[in-house]
Amino acid sequence: MSQHKVIYDTDPGVDDAMALVFQALHPDIELLGLTSVFGNATIETTTRNALFLTSRFAPHVPVAQGAAAPLERAAPQPLAWIHGDNGLGNVDLGSAGEPIASATLDARPAHRFIVDTVRAHPGEVTLIAVGPLTNLALALADDPQIATLVKQVVIMGGAFGGDGVLGNVTPAAEANILGDPHAADIVLGAAWPVAIVGLDVTQRTIMSRDYLASIGERGGAAGQFVWDVSRHYEAFHEQSAQLTGIYVHDSSAVAYVLAPHLYTTRSGPVRVLTEGIAVGQTIQKPSTMPVPAPDWDSRPSCEVCIGVDVQGMLALYEATLCGANRH
Amino acid sequence: MSQHKVIYDTDPGVDDAMALVFQALHPDIELLGLTSVFGNATIETTTRNALFLTSRFAPHVPVAQGAAAPLERAAPQPLAWIHGDNGLGNVDLGSAGEPIASATLDARPAHRFIVDTVRAHPGEVTLIAVGPLTNLALALADDPQIATLVKQVVIMGGAFGGDGVLGNVTPAAEANILGDPHAADIVLGAAWPVAIVGLDVTQRTIMSRDYLASIGERGGAAGQFVWDVSRHYEAFHEQSAQLTGIYVHDSSAVAYVLAPHLYTTRSGPVRVLTEGIAVGQTIQKPSTMPVPAPDWDSRPSCEVCIGVDVQGMLALYEATLCGANRH
Repeated sequence: MSQHKVIYDTDPGVDDAMALVFQALHPDIELLGLTSVFGNATIETTTRNALFLTSRFAPHVPVAQGAAAPLERAAPQPLAWIHGDNGLGNVDLGSAGEPIASATLDARPAHRFIVDTVRAHPGEVTLIAVGPLTNLALALADDPQIATLVKQVVIMGGAFGGDGVLGNVTPAAEANILGDPHAADIVLGAAWPVAIVGLDVTQRTIMSRDYLASIGERGGAAGQFVWDVSRHYEAFHEQSAQLTGIYVHDSSAVAYVLAPHLYTTRSGPVRVLTEGIAVGQTIQKPSTMPVPAPDWDSRPSCEVCIGVDVQGMLALYEATLCGANRH
Repeated sequence: MSQHKVIYDTDPGVDDAMALVFQALHPDIELLGLTSVFGNATIETTTRNALFLTSRFAPHVPVAQGAAAPLERAAPQPLAWIHGDNGLGNVDLGSAGEPIASATLDARPAHRFIVDTVRAHPGEVTLIAVGPLTNLALALADDPQIATLVKQVVIMGGAFGGDGVLGNVTPAAEANILGDPHAADIVLGAAWPVAIVGLDVTQRTIMSRDYLASIGERGGAAGQFVWDVSRHYEAFHEQSAQLTGIYVHDSSAVAYVLAPHLYTTRSGPVRVLTEGIAVGQTIQKPSTMPVPAPDWDSRPSCEVCIGVDVQGMLALYEATLCGANRH
């Protein structure tokens, strides 16, 4: 029996794709659906990519199309220099116009799919959200009670100062949160259990080129795809961060769901700045902080990842792709 | 010959007093004057304390009274629970009404004293600023050219995320910077060489009760004063941070001037948030960050301390107080 019924809210995106493969192959995860969102690319592209990914690695898992733009801002430009023109590292996705075999596009918008699915499995659904948090905010607006019916929300996003890092797209903001800061502030303020996997741990977790090559050789078709899809992404990392490898963003959220013991966390409410030069910044008030802070104190506590067992995380991904964990 | 001609801009304050003793006793520092500012206590209290401190440890060094309130906000409440009702840990300062022997109150306001003194020693003056930065901002407004005439500005203030810490008085702000965020943003944007010694290093540098007791026993009258003045302050640390000892804030700025090799720094422009829930936050764009950031990119680079040789710093202070460095 699967331990985790998951809705994967995603903007594929190279690392989104690598995290989808991780979820599809791990026996402890049952994917109830993918919900697409703008972010790494346009909503048309991320939805097409979600359908491509389910078709190849999670047949018959439904995809529901989500938000095309943030709640209160203009949609950002696609990050083509990071994720490629097609959002998936420019790998061949087949003919653009053709229907994709084994892919199911749900008729409902993403936020309604989330509400209905959570209500169908009260207390059981884990939301893994690795893009801008617009769909989750819309789901809360549609049906606030789902906050009490979700098992947990695990978010890849934000940065909390570990290693002095507060952002990757501005000096103060990480891309997913900046994608929709208003939605993020709503989602982090709702009464559901939230864990945040931000740059503090994802930029410490690096898949080297050798690691990826090994998965490409030993991981069958899925491993080959992980290698192929990460080539353009790795070139971006090499250029921007002098890294021969890639930061492990979205797959870290999956690892947190599967093996939370790999992460150390800090408790406390989190706010997101929605305006000013630091818009998109995530700021936690640690529960140990002895001063009053009215803008935080009325809000529920979140778990923020501040440490990671890097080798443990990499071993989990590798075992999932290369067989030791597969049924 | 003294290596460092210093104006000490200060809001004494217990740790301000400990840093004044450090400067007064170290042979490589020539104190040209103290400038007082509101902060840990009212301007009346900090000025009286500055006069008391010069009278006892730096006779005939002039004190110029500075700003009573920030540029654009109301003056904060005195931090009596940290620094005592008299700003100096409730140690006996003598009769309140009596003139203080050997103390010199300069007739000029602090910012004018700074301008005149810098112009009298072009290229030679180090400003050590350990309170709200109002006096420095007023000096720049009075005479912008001093930015090119100051040797360096060393500031105790701010926090940059080391160990995940962004503030001590709010989740996002350190006390000195929050004291006058507008002034801080002006000072950090001026064309003088700025080094920032913030919580990233000052909260890693701890003087234990045993360390302070040893200085009290071996440091003569100055050592006894350091012990006495730190009792109330230590009780605050014990209560708020479960620390049997004290964080070394202001003396760390002095140590940076004397022994910069004890600190590792990160270069890049720094902005201060002047509004919103994170008002007072300091945010650096590291010079290695490859993304454009218009709100930072037009500003001069600052050196932000991100690492410290704790034992080296503590040994320097101890040697200065207890004799090895004294002439």
